[in-house]
Amino acid sequence: MTRTVYVNGTYLPETEAKVSIFDRGFLMADGVYEVTSVLDGKLIDFDGHMNRLKRSLRELEMTCPLSADELLAMHRELVARNGIDQGMIYLQVTRGNPGDRSFLFPDASVPGTVVAFTQNIPHLADAPAAKTGFRVITIPDLRWSRVDIKTVQLLYPSMGKMAAKKAGVDDSWFTDEAGMVTEGTSNNAYIVKGNRIITRQLGSDILHGITRAAVLRLATEAQFEIEERPFSPAEAQQADEAFATAASIFVMPVVEVDGMPVGTGKPGPVATRLREIYLEEMRKAAL
Amino acid sequence: MTRTVYVNGTYLPETEAKVSIFDRGFLMADGVYEVTSVLDGKLIDFDGHMNRLKRSLRELEMTCPLSADELLAMHRELVARNGIDQGMIYLQVTRGNPGDRSFLFPDASVPGTVVAFTQNIPHLADAPAAKTGFRVITIPDLRWSRVDIKTVQLLYPSMGKMAAKKAGVDDSWFTDEAGMVTEGTSNNAYIVKGNRIITRQLGSDILHGITRAAVLRLATEAQFEIEERPFSPAEAQQADEAFATAASIFVMPVVEVDGMPVGTGKPGPVATRLREIYLEEMRKAAL
Repeated sequence: MTRTVYVNGTYLPETEAKVSIFDRGFLMADGVYEVTSVLDGKLIDFDGHMNRLKRSLRELEMTCPLSADELLAMHRELVARNGIDQGMIYLQVTRGNPGDRSFLFPDASVPGTVVAFTQNIPHLADAPAAKTGFRVITIPDLRWSRVDIKTVQLLYPSMGKMAAKKAGVDDSWFTDEAGMVTEGTSNNAYIVKGNRIITRQLGSDILHGITRAAVLRLATEAQFEIEERPFSPAEAQQADEAFATAASIFVMPVVEVDGMPVGTGKPGPVATRLREIYLEEMRKAAL
Repeated sequence: MTRTVYVNGTYLPETEAKVSIFDRGFLMADGVYEVTSVLDGKLIDFDGHMNRLKRSLRELEMTCPLSADELLAMHRELVARNGIDQGMIYLQVTRGNPGDRSFLFPDASVPGTVVAFTQNIPHLADAPAAKTGFRVITIPDLRWSRVDIKTVQLLYPSMGKMAAKKAGVDDSWFTDEAGMVTEGTSNNAYIVKGNRIITRQLGSDILHGITRAAVLRLATEAQFEIEERPFSPAEAQQADEAFATAASIFVMPVVEVDGMPVGTGKPGPVATRLREIYLEEMRKAAL
């Protein structure tokens, strides 16, 4: 089935969805994005994603031509038109098309570009990977220094995912110059020791995960202790459990780091429990 | 006049020049580029630019659907169709459109996307700025760690150019964690002390400038000494001269760094002479 996608106010078949070659998203990676999950045809933590989008835009002095209400209506329209029960909606806002290439930002009269599309993933909630867990390798974090802004500068995360594939595993975790884990290619990283969940503190070197915020809140409510600090791959290998979070994977157990099993080498009870709690609570609050 | 631009084998009006929203250049900044100057309707150092393009593609495991001969013919066709006497040709190659978004590279059956367009700049060679020189500020280098690969991840250089504009100057020079200058937003940086030209050595932290290579070769032939090492903004402020090089500015005197004049605060004899030599030699060798 051909998807119906959204481009600058118009719903059209995916094969006709195009932007100018002069769009700053294409020429200069001058754009930001969000990915919102859909369960039971409803949007998961949509307000969280829109709040982060606003922050990304503000940090880059960009504006979005659509209001929050219009973005919500558009997301719902895409879900309806494409009959999505489980899946994701990708939204990208760029600084638009000034008609030529320049390093200088265009003036305010140039509207931003907005595109969005769905991805249909029938087994998103009961993903087979959640039952076996991710195996990860670690590679140096070579990204720019403001990865807290969710830009489309995703070449290195993409290279990291390819490095994982070549190594026969599921993902790469990035390590900073001190050798400590920052995060995964497109997810935040955690380890578990007893009742404590350890994850890197927020800063400009990790994405401020929307799923991260919800999981930490729910974990606190479930009486887990939260410790926000960097951890090393070696500490992860010796932890009881490890896991990753992102809108696209919710809570994903991580069972191997650099060839060494974590804990039993199988998804642990904490990650499994947090995934259940997260899905239950988010489904209740879905829009 | 509407430009004629090139998109994937077709010459068409710029207003019709589009790429899919699923193009990896748009979604993931997964693309590389080159800018070649045109003087007297001919291409400046075209082979140098194509060699660097090949290197960028190789480093990213990308391929270009066009051969070197086809790229040359396409560049000449754009010059002819747009009647360019002086100006630039921008060329971008992306990993193409796999039809959906994924962090994994598409398989080899997905062809790369190739777009190119001209910019008409009647006074490129005798640019007024070359007579007054650039004033620059320094800002921290927050780019990713492989800027030797000429990718379209240009958001931070663009932010640097805006920072310069807001400060009322012409460009920003980036400084590394040790406070040493790496390069400008879209050019390599140099200082001059007596007969010595000092510029940062090649590495993954600066672009391997095609104009840089030519200028250093010509400077050596003109009996200047070359010293490849990092320098600080303070050393630049105390140097006899400073300058920047890039395909779009050739050799550009830099007369002020962080509010302090360099040398006399006017374009110096070395930068001025190198600009003359560069233009003379490059025009002779133009294709």
